[in-house]
Amino acid sequence: MEIEPVAFIENDYTEKFGIPRQSGLVELPSRIVFTEKYADENAVRGLSDFTHIWLIWGFSETDGKFSPTVRPPRLGGNVRMGVFATRSPYRPNPLGLSVVKLERIERGALIVTGADIMNGSPIYDIKPYLPYADSIPNASDGWALSRRGGNLRVTFPEELLVLIPEEKRGGLVELLAQDPRPQYQNDPKRVYTMAFGEFQVSFRIDNEILTVTAIK
Amino acid sequence: MEIEPVAFIENDYTEKFGIPRQSGLVELPSRIVFTEKYADENAVRGLSDFTHIWLIWGFSETDGKFSPTVRPPRLGGNVRMGVFATRSPYRPNPLGLSVVKLERIERGALIVTGADIMNGSPIYDIKPYLPYADSIPNASDGWALSRRGGNLRVTFPEELLVLIPEEKRGGLVELLAQDPRPQYQNDPKRVYTMAFGEFQVSFRIDNEILTVTAIK
Repeated sequence: MEIEPVAFIENDYTEKFGIPRQSGLVELPSRIVFTEKYADENAVRGLSDFTHIWLIWGFSETDGKFSPTVRPPRLGGNVRMGVFATRSPYRPNPLGLSVVKLERIERGALIVTGADIMNGSPIYDIKPYLPYADSIPNASDGWALSRRGGNLRVTFPEELLVLIPEEKRGGLVELLAQDPRPQYQNDPKRVYTMAFGEFQVSFRIDNEILTVTAIK
Repeated sequence: MEIEPVAFIENDYTEKFGIPRQSGLVELPSRIVFTEKYADENAVRGLSDFTHIWLIWGFSETDGKFSPTVRPPRLGGNVRMGVFATRSPYRPNPLGLSVVKLERIERGALIVTGADIMNGSPIYDIKPYLPYADSIPNASDGWALSRRGGNLRVTFPEELLVLIPEEKRGGLVELLAQDPRPQYQNDPKRVYTMAFGEFQVSFRIDNEILTVTAIK
């Protein structure tokens, strides 16, 4: 089946490194901009009654080859799991699934928070989140639960923090606290650099404390 | 983007009429049968640790034309809502999204319950349900909440019930209790006939009581 984008996402996740590993973990805003064909305000009539929406979207960085197993970063990168037991981008049809918070509707666009999607990715469908069907709080997390993400303390020197627009500071700190490192790396001397919109954010991580060292 | 089925679903929902309106409402079993290319037991390694899985699937009965609004049956069929504010099959890319309970894994197939998907529909992706990201119990239901489905009393004469395989009786009663009628119909004399696997189930509905009248 041939599917076509109904929208594209715009946000500060300008490269893969550092994007939150699932939706809802970091409250940074994204803009879902409809393509010309679907930028019809009637197509979102009634959507503002919902607080959350599903996005079915396309992973942009995949190689197109099928491997039945993948190595989830959450398991340290050296345990192989079946692709259908993971949310890995390397899957037969590279479709992502994320629930995001709908903040507001603008002309031809939706403003959402909590996306885990790279800037520029195509959105193939938008659906309302229906808690009576979609919310299963007591479902088993499988192997994902105990590895669901870091919770680092972030040290962000004031003279660097002021370089970031004020409304994005809290979100950037949340993003860094997630621990962007591959699970298997732990070198306190290593400096990582993560793209964040127009910025390059450099940091080191030592003993569960992340220290921002430069903003460019 | 071109996507291809990784599996097809097999169940007793042999026609559109009567299929539950969302997943999880009726505990009838379905079989997700992988295509030859993806029937690799390694591709589901680790999946049995999860109790619930997502299916991204294809609506089989759509006309391919885009209309920015649709008339949800839940609103009586004469109120127009934006297509992105509904789970209607008549959407730009006819993709469905359902969470189902994973009962067990067989060779080349998954046995699930709670699907709201017609027999023979293509499955494009299977992902584990991750409650820490996917479950938002306090999300707003929007207009869907108050219309989430019927709760009829079902009268199923014993001599007809025995015609249905024992393990499917409970599920069929649940299915009928959902009220398969279009929301705007209310004619106690009208006899409806719903396909259920190899059976044709006829019934009438009068004053919130559904009475099965024939099984063929």
